[in-house]
Amino acid sequence: MKKISRTSPSKIVLLIIDGVGGLPHPETSKTELESARKPNLNRIARESLCGLIDPISPGITPGSAPGHLAIFGYDPVKYNIGRGVAEALGIDVKLKPDDIAARGNFCTVDDKGIITHRRAGRISTDRNTVLCRLLNNITIAGVEISVLPVKEHRFVLILRGKALSPELSDSDPQQIGQAPKKIEALSPQAQKTAEIANEFMSQARSRLQHESPANMVLLRGFSRRPDIPSIPEIYKLKPAAIATYPMYRGLARLVGMQVLPGGDSITEQLNSLRRYYADYDFFFIHFKSTDARGEDGNFRAKVQAIEELDNALPSLLSLEPDVLIITGDHSTPATLAMHSWHPVPFMLKSKWCRPDNVAEFSERACLAGGMGRFSAAEIMPLAMANALKLDKFGA
Amino acid sequence: MKKISRTSPSKIVLLIIDGVGGLPHPETSKTELESARKPNLNRIARESLCGLIDPISPGITPGSAPGHLAIFGYDPVKYNIGRGVAEALGIDVKLKPDDIAARGNFCTVDDKGIITHRRAGRISTDRNTVLCRLLNNITIAGVEISVLPVKEHRFVLILRGKALSPELSDSDPQQIGQAPKKIEALSPQAQKTAEIANEFMSQARSRLQHESPANMVLLRGFSRRPDIPSIPEIYKLKPAAIATYPMYRGLARLVGMQVLPGGDSITEQLNSLRRYYADYDFFFIHFKSTDARGEDGNFRAKVQAIEELDNALPSLLSLEPDVLIITGDHSTPATLAMHSWHPVPFMLKSKWCRPDNVAEFSERACLAGGMGRFSAAEIMPLAMANALKLDKFGA
Repeated sequence: MKKISRTSPSKIVLLIIDGVGGLPHPETSKTELESARKPNLNRIARESLCGLIDPISPGITPGSAPGHLAIFGYDPVKYNIGRGVAEALGIDVKLKPDDIAARGNFCTVDDKGIITHRRAGRISTDRNTVLCRLLNNITIAGVEISVLPVKEHRFVLILRGKALSPELSDSDPQQIGQAPKKIEALSPQAQKTAEIANEFMSQARSRLQHESPANMVLLRGFSRRPDIPSIPEIYKLKPAAIATYPMYRGLARLVGMQVLPGGDSITEQLNSLRRYYADYDFFFIHFKSTDARGEDGNFRAKVQAIEELDNALPSLLSLEPDVLIITGDHSTPATLAMHSWHPVPFMLKSKWCRPDNVAEFSERACLAGGMGRFSAAEIMPLAMANALKLDKFGA
Repeated sequence: MKKISRTSPSKIVLLIIDGVGGLPHPETSKTELESARKPNLNRIARESLCGLIDPISPGITPGSAPGHLAIFGYDPVKYNIGRGVAEALGIDVKLKPDDIAARGNFCTVDDKGIITHRRAGRISTDRNTVLCRLLNNITIAGVEISVLPVKEHRFVLILRGKALSPELSDSDPQQIGQAPKKIEALSPQAQKTAEIANEFMSQARSRLQHESPANMVLLRGFSRRPDIPSIPEIYKLKPAAIATYPMYRGLARLVGMQVLPGGDSITEQLNSLRRYYADYDFFFIHFKSTDARGEDGNFRAKVQAIEELDNALPSLLSLEPDVLIITGDHSTPATLAMHSWHPVPFMLKSKWCRPDNVAEFSERACLAGGMGRFSAAEIMPLAMANALKLDKFGA
């Protein structure tokens, strides 16, 4: 792709409707998309190349990070985002390439150090912030330590220093009735980092011993941000992201996108798109509430989220992007109330797409589309081709 | 494939309609294929297994060489044909495995050696032939030099000798206002070849200095023909090619096909097929004018080319080949007037194919075929299977 990509004035807009795919409601036999009133999405489908994507591969349920990375053109298995890094991205922390991040839990241990509650009864985020400040003062030679609150009992530990390694086991045994585990080096180079991490655990215990209920910490998912070639590097694009949730802003930054101000609603996001439209040639817009309502198991609310999005679309359409792609990073059927493995509707509208006979943006309708069922890895080449930003391959 | 292929008397005919895929005409919303009157193609479709092929992968626009190699069963990324080799194939030059070929342009430079015209005003092919004769006399120790005219300002330089390497940079800066660039060795083994190529440039300058407007040359795309396993070797076939354009004859020879006399029209090509039908078991027939009319941007003429082909088909059908495959190497929509990335209709007729419900040979109709959308790499195994030339795999 690097060799055949070229810069041109054409604009690509990628709208990711998080968790948009669904399953039929038992009473109506219609999915959330099939139930929603969505004249704009349907009109776009009639002028688009449609299909169903597998973000990773059939049967595999994507986390949010791999689901997005796949659509951005990366192999989500090769560029896996560790738990610690995902948590850091989620609070908009700018990780340096060598930083080690771990996901932390405040927990409760008894007199003997045995875990009695892995989440310390889900303490408040305010309490979490106070406790993180206590831990932030821990000093260990040769490493800079940051402890940053996330939400409730969750925090991020970041280790910055020379020759650190993320190849460490977890201290979190993932069950109660045991003591936190000693952190082990999983490779010889990780020995020093293991010592630092265990020293952190020990000092944290001292500093928290008189607190209640959060009197200890658990660490897991030590990781470093992947060394990932950027979108400007691969595709010669100038990309920007408009996302309300920090995790998606972090992901976008990771692949070299400029993060633009968003606002809390899709209308505000699209206003931002309009404001910055002249300055970039690739826009990733992230719409979150479909996934959130799906995870709530609230079918009706997910349908409403789709309708809210549909309502806002004319503002996007009036910009007439050269390529408009609408899809999702995974399915979140309200009946399952969680991410799922089901493939996700996809459509691509451009002057140069070959339209098919699909007349509706839904799971069943898109299956008959011109792309059929395909891998999310193919989206970026298709986007680039339809924007006339790719040279011919070979003589 | 090598392990399970076997020889049998059955015959496979592969008809490649160059650039046959298209896009809807803005007025009728019908593609070139959908607009053409083509009773024979439609009748074959009704008795065939249909589908849409991606010659390389979705979004990637194939050059002619990779498009054909993919259909012949080769990985077109692995067996990439360099610009120099493609140009040599195009004039039917028989390259030896170690020959280095480069694409040359006659150009115009000013007194200071700065390029003022990259194509020397597109000199005539006759003039080109005269100038090539001048350059053909250049002698450099340790290498045999051939300079062969192609068309207008284009020529091929072939270096034949021991221990030569194609890993060289171009002398063509691809823009005016600069001097031709010094050719650099891109690997240590290419040092000697770089010196030879630069010496050629310098002698060419001396020999051309009093000519006008073509007083210098530019070289690019140094390459060697890929070391490619032949079709007889892989499939135990005895293959022949009937193609009117030299480039396709060259490609066919590269993969081990016997090149048969063709003639200028599809009728003459099919007469040749009839004449040699007993002598081979695999025939590649190349029909060019669909691509040429598409590249002209002439929708109506491309439709007529399809109709001309359709008209000629009864002669082919009367031979009753055991397997008949009709497809294209890429799309060339008249609306785009260039090769494109859109997938290409495909059909395979044999006594042993499982027909689908497709009743028309066109982009939208073939999408609903038994193969759906698939990779061109799968065509040869399908052809062999339907000719009952493949053993079962495994116990």
